[in-house]
Order: sequence, then structure tokens, then C-alpha cells
Amino acid sequence: MRVVIVGCGFGGLFAARTLRRAPVEIIVLDRTNHHLFQPLLYQVATAGLAAPAIAEPIRRALARQKNVTALYGEVRRVDTDARAVVMENGDAIAYDRLIVAAGAIDNYFGHPQWQLHAPSLKTLADAFEIRRRILLAFEHAERASDAAARAAWLTFVVIGAGATGVELAGTLAEIARHTLKGQFRRIDPRNARIVLVEAADRVLVSYPPALSERARTQLERLGVTVWLGKRVVGIDADGVDLDAERLAAKTVIWCAGIAASPLGETLGVPLDRGRRVIVEPDLSVPGHPEIQVVGDLACLPAHRPAVPGVAPAAKQMGRHAARNLLAELAGRKPTPFRYRDYGQLATIGRSKAVAMFGRLHLSGWLAWVTWLCAHIYFLIGFRNRLVVLIDWAWSYWTFDRSARIVAGVDRTPAPEPRPGSQHDTRSR
Amino acid sequence: MRVVIVGCGFGGLFAARTLRRAPVEIIVLDRTNHHLFQPLLYQVATAGLAAPAIAEPIRRALARQKNVTALYGEVRRVDTDARAVVMENGDAIAYDRLIVAAGAIDNYFGHPQWQLHAPSLKTLADAFEIRRRILLAFEHAERASDAAARAAWLTFVVIGAGATGVELAGTLAEIARHTLKGQFRRIDPRNARIVLVEAADRVLVSYPPALSERARTQLERLGVTVWLGKRVVGIDADGVDLDAERLAAKTVIWCAGIAASPLGETLGVPLDRGRRVIVEPDLSVPGHPEIQVVGDLACLPAHRPAVPGVAPAAKQMGRHAARNLLAELAGRKPTPFRYRDYGQLATIGRSKAVAMFGRLHLSGWLAWVTWLCAHIYFLIGFRNRLVVLIDWAWSYWTFDRSARIVAGVDRTPAPEPRPGSQHDTRSR
Repeated sequence: MRVVIVGCGFGGLFAARTLRRAPVEIIVLDRTNHHLFQPLLYQVATAGLAAPAIAEPIRRALARQKNVTALYGEVRRVDTDARAVVMENGDAIAYDRLIVAAGAIDNYFGHPQWQLHAPSLKTLADAFEIRRRILLAFEHAERASDAAARAAWLTFVVIGAGATGVELAGTLAEIARHTLKGQFRRIDPRNARIVLVEAADRVLVSYPPALSERARTQLERLGVTVWLGKRVVGIDADGVDLDAERLAAKTVIWCAGIAASPLGETLGVPLDRGRRVIVEPDLSVPGHPEIQVVGDLACLPAHRPAVPGVAPAAKQMGRHAARNLLAELAGRKPTPFRYRDYGQLATIGRSKAVAMFGRLHLSGWLAWVTWLCAHIYFLIGFRNRLVVLIDWAWSYWTFDRSARIVAGVDRTPAPEPRPGSQHDTRSR
Repeated sequence: MRVVIVGCGFGGLFAARTLRRAPVEIIVLDRTNHHLFQPLLYQVATAGLAAPAIAEPIRRALARQKNVTALYGEVRRVDTDARAVVMENGDAIAYDRLIVAAGAIDNYFGHPQWQLHAPSLKTLADAFEIRRRILLAFEHAERASDAAARAAWLTFVVIGAGATGVELAGTLAEIARHTLKGQFRRIDPRNARIVLVEAADRVLVSYPPALSERARTQLERLGVTVWLGKRVVGIDADGVDLDAERLAAKTVIWCAGIAASPLGETLGVPLDRGRRVIVEPDLSVPGHPEIQVVGDLACLPAHRPAVPGVAPAAKQMGRHAARNLLAELAGRKPTPFRYRDYGQLATIGRSKAVAMFGRLHLSGWLAWVTWLCAHIYFLIGFRNRLVVLIDWAWSYWTFDRSARIVAGVDRTPAPEPRPGSQHDTRSR
């Protein structure tokens, strides 16, 4: 029996691993060559970690599992009649059982043109682009010859105050206040303005209001300006339009929404509003017991409370889908999926975080240390854990960040030359 | 007095540092935000090190030197009459004294179209592109459905057997033989063919013939095919044309030549064949005692033996140019530059290298350990040293490489679908 797994994020990887002793042939397909530890992706985007520390080559992750063949490539559609997935070049790969773990992509709510000016953070390439924009904004500010341009380069807007938005805004504040301190001559990076814009009336809406409030206080203590209840109506190269005002900013980061992978649409079954596949309680696709959908692409309408779009949920679903397969091989029935909530954690900055484990709510240093340990523990690969630990210890003691590198060509237009700029008028 | 330094490679960085106590205003201009430790760039290209380990942010490198202003941007030309450098956006930055350390770029000897099919290795972006091609070649081989395509994806051609070419070819052999062993199901990476093509009759022509011979033996022991006395007459997407034969290969890397930065041409003085600026013995530009040229861009025709285009030479020239400036400030005359050759080292692979210190010639394990210590010692930044040490120790014990990551979009065309490929014909 051949099991095809589409996507090697948390859902796909844990499905494959759970089948390690099963007498099946497994094909894992991914359009990247690495499993990405997305909870730490914002640290690559903010120059705290090098990309290899949070990206494990899929081949290495699955090297010893002899029943797995990993193939690099993008699945374009599922042909449910032929029981095959169709690749980017037309290759059809047949399956007996299919696990779709294709995850989510960014969502600009009908404004795809905003993506150009406000990148989102889903892939390593996104993280490099955001890192490039953040680092070069300070460089352009140092070269800018008038105050308005300098202020625009020193204004950073993060849209969306979910976990990623909060983490990015907090880290940006630390970079401006600490990491870059004393490294510029014409600007003071501490004057950088970091604005976190959220449409809801509080940050981290998936947390209880009291923790949201503590997160907001911690953000403001770091120097982040938190704007709540503000809707974004426009984004262009020079700033953001909110309902009632305009914010001039050269660096805007989009953390406001995700949508399910378009692969779900090719299954030919009903989707929810976020284009997720509405699956049966056992994760199978209605009418197709041979297909299961897991992770951010799956919607379980009857599950209470709703399953959050987080890594532990994807892992649990991947494992559950594989166990349903093992049950089938053993002649047993599939079981319904039940999400186990072990808690939620969001970091804000050095010694600042919020955490929630059932009725236990934490904030501040203790939450931060818990966050740290949990992320080191769940990181894939021993070497990565070691490198991340060293990088974090280094950053903690020195306030430095290890990956402040811009590679490749800068496509941001340089500041316009102005007659009478400070470069020209220096008396000789 | 304002001193402008163009380029923050070894020449520019050491010039700036030598002026740390001088009563001058220093402006350091670079088109990247980092000082790159080029001797280890091939390790980023072969996934052995993450980029931040060998790239030090210029601002961090010069943060404490209060007389330095670092500006990010590209210098397009030198206006020797106005005594100003002109930036990419037209900004003119005036200088009283100028040190040009703009380095070298790749050189395809009149065949710029080859660059598309055979990238060279000068910048971090180049290293990422080469890493991407190497890693994806194995991925495409695993997916290829016919033997000819598979063989072409598994053939790697390195053109030019200088230090970089030898290092790349040796490392490629190790990746195929060791790092990837057991991680593929349809191909055996050990069947990869690594061909090192050199027009001269031996590898490492800057070394004595006996050491070249030992390097060749060590390369062949690693599994590299060394082709000497072969001239490349064509490169396209599917392979390389040599004088008498055709080599089908999907991955070709160009290590055959460099040329001086085009900035030298804007000085309006005679250049040598490699477009380097012919400088006076004290590194100043003829007729312009206020301008000095250092590093790969400088040609010292009277210097015997010729100054090699290596990091130590650039460092020494940068330091010397700065000392000439200090001498001028003290009312003394500039002195001629004299290159001190402390030795030459080239690594080939694990426990394999050649080294030359005056009349002392080494090869094998001892040369390799010397190479290792020298590169750790000269690496800029304590943290980088530590990280590289850990990565190397890890690789040594595990044969693994820590940065096997492909970020961004793959623009290589995927293998063509074929009727009757192995994916289609599996019996169900």
C-alpha cells in the first residue's frame, strides 16, 4: 500500500514518523527541501537566528526511516478519481491513501497588491525579505538627507497583533533600543517608532483579556506603540492608511491573516470561509475515506472549542491521521480526532511573555523562561537545539543579534539625491 | 580632514581600523551591510556554514570606532576633479583623501552569457545560488525518470582549479560520498560525478609543482575527476563544451577568473590587462597623491614577486595605505608597499590540504589542521569563531553539514513528465 503525504510541516512530518514501522510505502512531497520550525521564524526575520538553525532538511529528518521516499516538488492538484496527485510538471503520483498537510498561505483579504509593500511571514524567503527590509531601513535612514524621509525610514508598522505580530513588534523594539545602539552616527536608532496595529480591541485575542492586557503593558514598556481598534484600508510604498489617519512608514509587515493552501480547492468538497477543507471528525474527507486532511488546511466544525491553527494541533492531527491508517491496517475503525490543549505561549521580548496552561496564567519572566525551554525542547534536531541555545545565550548577555546580514541585491529605491544635502554642502 | 574608504572587504576594513586614533573623519562605503570572510565563502556555498558565521555586519565591526561613519550604498564613479565619489542615486560624497578598496568581480573572459549557467562565487548571494543548485541537483536526480537526465543532474563541473575550485570540488565529493549517504531511495549520491576542469597542466598553479601534484592525488582519492589542459569553449543549460568533447552536466560552477571592479576605470588612469589600477609603489594613483588603491583592484607592476590576489595581501595594503596617511599627518613621506608572504594554504577536504610557508611545504593532515587554525584565528568576531568551531566539530564527527537549506523559489525547470515514468506505471 502506498501512502502519499503532501507537505512536510508539523502535520506531514509527524504523520510520516508515526508510520515508521508500518508495512507501507510512504512518499513525502514538499515544495521546499526543509521542515521549517515556524514558531521561531520571526527570529530569522529579526536577525536573531540563522536560517539553518530552524530549518531541518527533510532528508535528514527522515533519513533512517527506510519506508519513506522524500521527493522535492509542488503538488498542483489532487485527482481524486484517478487517486493520484499531480505535480508542477504534470507528473502524476498515484496513492492508495493520501494525507494532505499542505498548510496555510498568507491572506490579504482581497488586497493582493498589499503584499508588495507589506510582506508576510510564512517561509524562509519571507523571513529573509523582512530581515532585509528591517536592516536596510536603518541604513537608508542613516543616509537620508531630510527629516521626513528619515522619520519614514525609522517607522515600522506591524499589522495584526496575534502571536507573530506581537513577537515581531517586541523584537523590533529591542533591536532599535539595544542591538543597534551606538552603531549609527547620524541617527539614533532608539528614535525608531514601532507601531503595532490591530483591528480588534486587544492584542492576542486568543488569550484571556487579562493576559492580553499584560501583553500590551509589556509591549509598551519595550517602546512599542499599540494601536487597537484600527482597521487598515490601504498600504503603499510610503505608508499605511487607517480608517481615519495616515501613517508614513517605509517598513510594513503583514501579520493579519492566513488562508488555507489552494490545494484544498482541488479536492472537490465543501470548504469553510478560510477555504479550509471541512473534514469528518476522524479527519477524512467526506466521501473519500482514503484521504485525510490535517493541520492548518483542516476544519473540524463540530470540535469544541475550535482547534487553533498552531504547531501542536498540526502535530496531533498528523499523528492521529497516521494512527487511523494503522488502525485500518489492523482491521480496526478510525477514531475521531480530539485536540489536547497543553497550553499557549507567546513571547514579547527579553524576560517578557505570556503563557496559559489551563487555568494557570503566567506573564513576565517565568512565562518567558517557559517559552524558551518549550521552544528549545520542541526544535527538531540536536544540533539545532545547541546552536539556538548558544545564539540565545549570546544575545541575552550582549544584546547583540547574530544574523544581521543582507544578502543579494537591494531593490528598495535609494533616497533621492537632493541639492544641498549634507553630503554636498560640507565645507572643504 | 575627511577620508573616504570605498569597500569594506579586507583592504577597506583594515585601512579603517589602522586609522582608529587618527584625527580624521572617516566615511566607509559599501554596497553590502557586511564584511565578508571570503576564504570561507565556499563553505556557505556547500552548506557547511550558515551565512552569518562568515559575515560580520560592518556597523558591528566598526561600532566602537567613533571617527567612522559607515554608509550603505554603491559608489558608481570617482570624480577626481571635484574630489568626490558619486553614489548610485547621484549623491556626491566629498573626500580629502580617498582609499579605493572595491575589490574584484567575476570574469567570464568575454562570455557573459555563461554566467547564467555557471555562477561564480564572490558574494553571499552567489553562495546561496550555488548551494541551491547543488542541493536541488540531487533532488532533481531523485525525481528524474530516465537514466540520461539522472546522470546529467548527478554531474557537477567545477571550472578552474585555483584554491576556490579545488575547495569546492573536494567538498562536493565529500557531500556526495558522505553527507548524503543513505538519504535517497532512487539514486545513490555516491554515483555523483565531480569533474574539475583546468586549462593549465596542473591544479593550484600558484603552488610549486610538487604540491600541485599532491593536491591532485588528494582530490582523486576523494573521488574528484581532474581534467587538466582542457579549455572551456561553451557552457549552456545542459553542459559544458570543451575543445574536443562535450560534458553533459546540469550543475556548473565558474571558478576560472576574476576581474577588477569597474570602479577603477572611472579614475582615468592606466589599467593593466585585468583592468586593475596601476599604482605607484606607495599605492597612490599616478598624478593623484590623495587617492590610494588597495587590494584586488591594485596592480603593483614593479613588485617582485607579484602580489597575489589573496586576503592577507589586501589586509596589508589596506593597513599600509592608512599608515601612509598617518605619515602624511605627521609630516612624513609615504613609503613603498612591500608584501610579506606568510604562506599559502589551500584545503581539499577532510584531513586533506596543501600548505607552503617559505621553503616549508606541507600536505595532508598537518596542512589541514594548520588551515583550520589559521581560518578560525583570522575570522572576524569572537562569536563567529565559536560558531564555526562548533559547526566544524559537528561536521567532522557526523559527516553532516549544517546548512542544507534551499530558501526561495526554485527557478530550475523541473524534469519533463514522460509517459510511462516510474510514477505512472506503478501497478495498483
